[in-house]
Amino acid sequence: MDGAEVTTPRERYRAQVRAEIKERAWEQIATAGASALSLNAIAKRMGMSGPALYRYFASRDELITELVRDAYRSLADTFRAARTAGADPTGLAHALRGWALADPHRYFLVYGTPVPGYHAPDDITAIASEIMAGLLDACAELLPADGPATPFDAHLADHRDWAGDHPAPPATLHRALTFWTRLHGVLSLELAGHFTGMGFDPERFYDAELADLLRMSTES
Amino acid sequence: MDGAEVTTPRERYRAQVRAEIKERAWEQIATAGASALSLNAIAKRMGMSGPALYRYFASRDELITELVRDAYRSLADTFRAARTAGADPTGLAHALRGWALADPHRYFLVYGTPVPGYHAPDDITAIASEIMAGLLDACAELLPADGPATPFDAHLADHRDWAGDHPAPPATLHRALTFWTRLHGVLSLELAGHFTGMGFDPERFYDAELADLLRMSTES
Repeated sequence: MDGAEVTTPRERYRAQVRAEIKERAWEQIATAGASALSLNAIAKRMGMSGPALYRYFASRDELITELVRDAYRSLADTFRAARTAGADPTGLAHALRGWALADPHRYFLVYGTPVPGYHAPDDITAIASEIMAGLLDACAELLPADGPATPFDAHLADHRDWAGDHPAPPATLHRALTFWTRLHGVLSLELAGHFTGMGFDPERFYDAELADLLRMSTES
Repeated sequence: MDGAEVTTPRERYRAQVRAEIKERAWEQIATAGASALSLNAIAKRMGMSGPALYRYFASRDELITELVRDAYRSLADTFRAARTAGADPTGLAHALRGWALADPHRYFLVYGTPVPGYHAPDDITAIASEIMAGLLDACAELLPADGPATPFDAHLADHRDWAGDHPAPPATLHRALTFWTRLHGVLSLELAGHFTGMGFDPERFYDAELADLLRMSTES
């Protein structure tokens, strides 16, 4: 949010207008899709001219970046709050599912089909790294793997720049990546409606994947 | 393809125009996204009037359905060809990855962010079921799980309508679902660029997930 640095009435007004533009953008994403996002259409709905709106967001990409940043920020905050409350990997997984179900459009903007022509700036990557660091911290508390290292563990030992200076051993890096991809696999297909009509309970499936991820800690 | 039933020159011409419309649609999806698909824009690019094009596809949704049907058909054929050539689950997984990497836009149209307002008709579900049946056949050849049934296995025993009359036991249903979601989890994040800059090799990660899925056969 822009709120923290706002001091003058003019700046407060600017923050309000930006917030309203973002609300309208989320409505557009829900009804027409992120790739159909149009600053001119938003301006029209708000009773503004296109050029007037461009004073708040210089381009479609700047608006998308702001929405993606808000989304990542929200997930990073959700993870941090869960960790502060003592959440283990199970708690983080449940926090992730709650966050995704609360707003599937937000989930898909970050983890779904890329918006053609849009490229996220570097500071977005930094927030994504913060989310991964929370996952690494949680996975590091699990029992270490007692089996032999897998070939991919060995590969990660030499390809760990993405983990920054986190001291986690390769098996923990592997587990954190797997947490991400397996939970995303179930969540994204559930949210996209692929399980609709199949009859089973997606939440039980999610919990089964989670149980298996925790079992990995003594088996891989 | 429409080709098999075409007999007259008029019908052949119609099939050609429909094929060209679909090509232009894939170009639009690549450059502007599926949710921005516009029959009028395609007509303009082809030098046709909007009404003339609507004689080939009555609506945007009819065009999307045709593209989704072609995509599912292509994956079902890829799986069937792999199975005919003797592919085990590992072979199917590699066929899936090859199919996805060959055309990420096609992959995301089927398994990515849903297109707002679009609902697939029932016959699409039938092709999806055919793909799942191929996966069930392959998983049925793996060693049965020798551990106790998981709670989700028990749940699937009572919620197996989606598997039609396939005789697979619940543990195999579970494994087939897991194949789908875990491989999708890695593939979709790889194709969306989330691993870019992380430094590890996505193919090795995919193979590690696959190895773990095969190990499940004696551990779950």
